[in-house]
Amino acid sequence: MNHSVQLLGISNAIVDILAHIEDEFLDKIVAVPGSMTLIDMDRAREIYALMGPATEMSGGSVANTVAGFANLGGSSAYIGRVTADQLGGIFNHDMRSLGVDVRLQAAKDGLPTARSHILITADGQRTMQTYLGACTELSVDDITTDTMGTPKAVLIEGYVWDLPEGPDLTAKAMEIAKQNGTTVALSLSDSFCVERHRESFEHAVRTGVDIVVADEDEVKALLQTESFEETLEALDGFDNLFAITRSDKGSVIVHGDQLIVQAADAIEAVVDTTGAGDAYTAGFLYGWVNDMPLAECAKIGTFCGSTVIQQVGARIEPGLLEDYS
Amino acid sequence: MNHSVQLLGISNAIVDILAHIEDEFLDKIVAVPGSMTLIDMDRAREIYALMGPATEMSGGSVANTVAGFANLGGSSAYIGRVTADQLGGIFNHDMRSLGVDVRLQAAKDGLPTARSHILITADGQRTMQTYLGACTELSVDDITTDTMGTPKAVLIEGYVWDLPEGPDLTAKAMEIAKQNGTTVALSLSDSFCVERHRESFEHAVRTGVDIVVADEDEVKALLQTESFEETLEALDGFDNLFAITRSDKGSVIVHGDQLIVQAADAIEAVVDTTGAGDAYTAGFLYGWVNDMPLAECAKIGTFCGSTVIQQVGARIEPGLLEDYS
Repeated sequence: MNHSVQLLGISNAIVDILAHIEDEFLDKIVAVPGSMTLIDMDRAREIYALMGPATEMSGGSVANTVAGFANLGGSSAYIGRVTADQLGGIFNHDMRSLGVDVRLQAAKDGLPTARSHILITADGQRTMQTYLGACTELSVDDITTDTMGTPKAVLIEGYVWDLPEGPDLTAKAMEIAKQNGTTVALSLSDSFCVERHRESFEHAVRTGVDIVVADEDEVKALLQTESFEETLEALDGFDNLFAITRSDKGSVIVHGDQLIVQAADAIEAVVDTTGAGDAYTAGFLYGWVNDMPLAECAKIGTFCGSTVIQQVGARIEPGLLEDYS
Repeated sequence: MNHSVQLLGISNAIVDILAHIEDEFLDKIVAVPGSMTLIDMDRAREIYALMGPATEMSGGSVANTVAGFANLGGSSAYIGRVTADQLGGIFNHDMRSLGVDVRLQAAKDGLPTARSHILITADGQRTMQTYLGACTELSVDDITTDTMGTPKAVLIEGYVWDLPEGPDLTAKAMEIAKQNGTTVALSLSDSFCVERHRESFEHAVRTGVDIVVADEDEVKALLQTESFEETLEALDGFDNLFAITRSDKGSVIVHGDQLIVQAADAIEAVVDTTGAGDAYTAGFLYGWVNDMPLAECAKIGTFCGSTVIQQVGARIEPGLLEDYS
């Protein structure tokens, strides 16, 4: 048994159900454009019945990062809960087919596999209505020295704090990581998620987290700052490595006295911004686990993010680094 | 109860599982490039385990035509068998969301819903490995005056002849159609399918079928001709309306003394040829059920086929005719 992969992801295992919609559809289902809303199964059935023909593909923020990291050539593993239904089979297949070591077997019973209804308007904006299902049954017992192994880094998704045992299981994961010398990275997921769990996140960042990956809004929500300048000042009080994406302003890496500014790539045509942050994280961590300088990590992250927004679909395709220079 | 839709489709109800592959993958699984092969569940599991991350979407040849026809604004219904599993739910959802009247409930038991593993090489060629599952349990009893209703036209898929009760249930469908004055259209599916069932197809065409939709190779296989000139001569012996697609040579409509030649549209860039024939059929039949002249039917069919090959995905999107002139 070799548990020494470079990156282990712990996150919500979700299959995306994607459909193009007219703007009025969001009014009809009373959804805020661009938002991510957690819904129950009744609401999921209702929305699915109303929405048009869809395409299904594996998704989930940190799951996308792990898949992308594997496609870059990194060795990786994954902890997330699906049920042994067809969507769970799709999720685990897609992970395993990339060489990702899926650490949890699909559950024989319990709630159905999670799905996110992703409603795309003509301008490319995505509104997500997510039924977490099986994810909500991820438990403290799923996080063990055996399922964790001894990865070089573990990447935990902020959304995991939304799960009933989320705060406890992430605490356990950080404890096991500390014992094994595993670096802990935290993705802040989205600014609403940060607002829901701000104190827990700040506590985690101050005590168990080494690397924070986030976009500018998420870091502002964490630090309760208004401007980016104010944010940079507030970061003075933290030892962590922060990798902060800023959309067309590029990204900024802050670690102690180091401040690295990476410009965004010139983009010919934005096709679909979904997954840009997850892809950046995949590239950044790929550089990091391979001991590259931080500036190079940021450059690879930017390359991955730029590529993903010029394609349909959130996950990095295999062989991407062949085009990297 | 209003069963008087314009078009009823009877076909294999299949969810596509699409993945990009390297050329070597086809050697590895011993598949002929560009072929459609029927496989059993063990083989389906084996291929799925070997193939990379995939995207799932509803498919099936005549099902694509019916979905496209609905998106053009036609009223339609569908008979095809799925099981009440998640893939069956996806298939029926996608049909119903287009306003297609799904005439069979998902089966409570029996084999799982059919899926076609569609393996796409870098040049865009598709190799299909299809597990028919629930489709093989479509029975003569599923075809009744109630499930058939009184559509203006029924479109039957050649592949249905591959099913155990296929020859009997299609005979019954043609008999009910005759009683109700419903026009019978037959899609020849693929030239290998025609070779498997040539005599049955010829018998059907001579006795119960009014319209034959097919590509040039399929018609040649049916008539056992070599050249297109020879094919046109052989068609002299048939009363049927033939709508024959010829790829970049456009299409030819033959009906009695009428011969209509429709040129292909100029194509800027072929993205994905899948579904071109099915989309042509949707457009052609949309014109036909709306009593348009045959030349106009061919023109709409061509427009639909041309559009589909310039997009990813086999089904016509809603509102297509807004761009038609």
